[in-house]
Amino acid sequence: MSDVFGYIQAELPRVNRFLEHQAAGLDPVVRPLVEHALLAGGKRLRPMLLLLAARALRLPGHVDPYPLACSLEILHTATLLHDDILDGADLRRGRKTAHLAFGRQEAILAGDVLLALANRLVAEYGEPRLTWVLSEAILRTAMGEVMEIGATRKPDLTRDRYLEIITGKTAYLFQGACQCGAILASAEEELEDAALQFGLHLGVAFQLVDDALDYASLPDDTGKPEAGDLREGKVTLPLLLHLEQMPAPEREAFCAKFAAGTLDEAEIADHLARIRAAGHPEATRQAARDHAAKAAAALALFPQGPETALLSQVLDFVLSRSK
Amino acid sequence: MSDVFGYIQAELPRVNRFLEHQAAGLDPVVRPLVEHALLAGGKRLRPMLLLLAARALRLPGHVDPYPLACSLEILHTATLLHDDILDGADLRRGRKTAHLAFGRQEAILAGDVLLALANRLVAEYGEPRLTWVLSEAILRTAMGEVMEIGATRKPDLTRDRYLEIITGKTAYLFQGACQCGAILASAEEELEDAALQFGLHLGVAFQLVDDALDYASLPDDTGKPEAGDLREGKVTLPLLLHLEQMPAPEREAFCAKFAAGTLDEAEIADHLARIRAAGHPEATRQAARDHAAKAAAALALFPQGPETALLSQVLDFVLSRSK
Repeated sequence: MSDVFGYIQAELPRVNRFLEHQAAGLDPVVRPLVEHALLAGGKRLRPMLLLLAARALRLPGHVDPYPLACSLEILHTATLLHDDILDGADLRRGRKTAHLAFGRQEAILAGDVLLALANRLVAEYGEPRLTWVLSEAILRTAMGEVMEIGATRKPDLTRDRYLEIITGKTAYLFQGACQCGAILASAEEELEDAALQFGLHLGVAFQLVDDALDYASLPDDTGKPEAGDLREGKVTLPLLLHLEQMPAPEREAFCAKFAAGTLDEAEIADHLARIRAAGHPEATRQAARDHAAKAAAALALFPQGPETALLSQVLDFVLSRSK
Repeated sequence: MSDVFGYIQAELPRVNRFLEHQAAGLDPVVRPLVEHALLAGGKRLRPMLLLLAARALRLPGHVDPYPLACSLEILHTATLLHDDILDGADLRRGRKTAHLAFGRQEAILAGDVLLALANRLVAEYGEPRLTWVLSEAILRTAMGEVMEIGATRKPDLTRDRYLEIITGKTAYLFQGACQCGAILASAEEELEDAALQFGLHLGVAFQLVDDALDYASLPDDTGKPEAGDLREGKVTLPLLLHLEQMPAPEREAFCAKFAAGTLDEAEIADHLARIRAAGHPEATRQAARDHAAKAAAALALFPQGPETALLSQVLDFVLSRSK
């Protein structure tokens, strides 16, 4: 696992310098907000995925992958800016969210600026398929978020629809990162498809683990309030499994309160304890492992090499993370 | 002038059908909102400009301009969705704004969906310069809007900055429409630049007339409240001209109240009457005519033909409109 962190450590300065340079090129009216949102640290997972996928698939030495890799982070940051407004979030990576620090109107527009900035960077490669793939990814990400909002406090969500939501809001951008890496490396169609499948299932696994952690981890591990999803009315897999096991009369009563947002602290603590005791977070992690196996199967088609090995480690990291 | 309206009437059904088809292809979670925003009618000025510019510059018969033309309307609608949230607007084209009818979160995300949808359509042309030009246009449009928000209730705005704001928020998308028309027609560099200049100055003239109308027209002409910009703290050219003529002590007192948003009805009526009597709306129209002259000079470089003549009529229409 240390190899992956070594790779990230080695690549981070160049990725961050590129992002700083892009932010510095913007008009002073949006620069501080964009710098606040874009340069707040983080693992830069999406750019790293693109770099690894491109290099694993034998990126030619004369092709510069950094603008494309960084455009993924810029797109991701744009979606976070809009998300945080939607969620009314106060904190992001331990700092005040941009819409609180700079104003909501400014944050909406800065998100639009970042979407356009990323598109402009991608267009400079002269390969329209890159724009197509990333536009599709953003379109599906936004649709996934609309679906999630629509499903809030609606406990009759099906498992299929839940999977559709998390695929939308999280996995398509991972898919786009890996697919764009393959396109940049001029990979053959079969390998491009393998990269796409790897990114897709990695992304689904990533979100499933996230949803498991919300119920499994202690508050000090994540900095989030315990059972945040349950409080906020987000319907995720651990809750769906809990609902499946509830006797019908209890389920009806629970659903009414969940829908109305009137569960009290004692009820939340009780359901949280039962969800943990029944092993639903662990079952959610198992679902993540199933998707990781599909990602690994896709990765098996990649040519062997150091970056392919690192992508396999990324998969292990996504499954094993505890915050 | 009837030629232009005839052209628009002839083209509208095809443009609208294409937009309907795009909306129908979206997931049901966003389709009603997108249809509400995208299919509300209107002259489709930006698509028409693209069609006219492309044909005036001898678009080859095998190139389909409609997806690109419609992507302009989709981008414009995306910016309107976000704008109406920023402005807290209640009505758009006589209907409830989308964020009131469908929710603010949904409207932010639907805007993102439309930005991505337009990019995807443009990418299908296989010409990265189209994506580059439109990304640049959206980036500048969003920056212009951030600047405008920053300048609200700040009467010390300079004329240069005012021009920068209206160029950003309005003219760059007009410029992008005409430039993309030229690129699609594979026009020579000199003609592409002429198209760009035509669109830019047409757009500035369009916004100047808009700002003149806000002070000049009677409420029943536009459906907007009289002196809406003055009430909302928007600093536009008629007000800047008024401020230049005010004696210093009065200006100070006015600026304090304008900045605080505490002008009462009698004061608003008084300033409105003085702005009209001094001819500032007419002077603003004169500034629009100056930009229209620059647009006409750029248009003079176009090959002669029916579409070039129609573009000249569009210019006349923009200058003469009274609502």
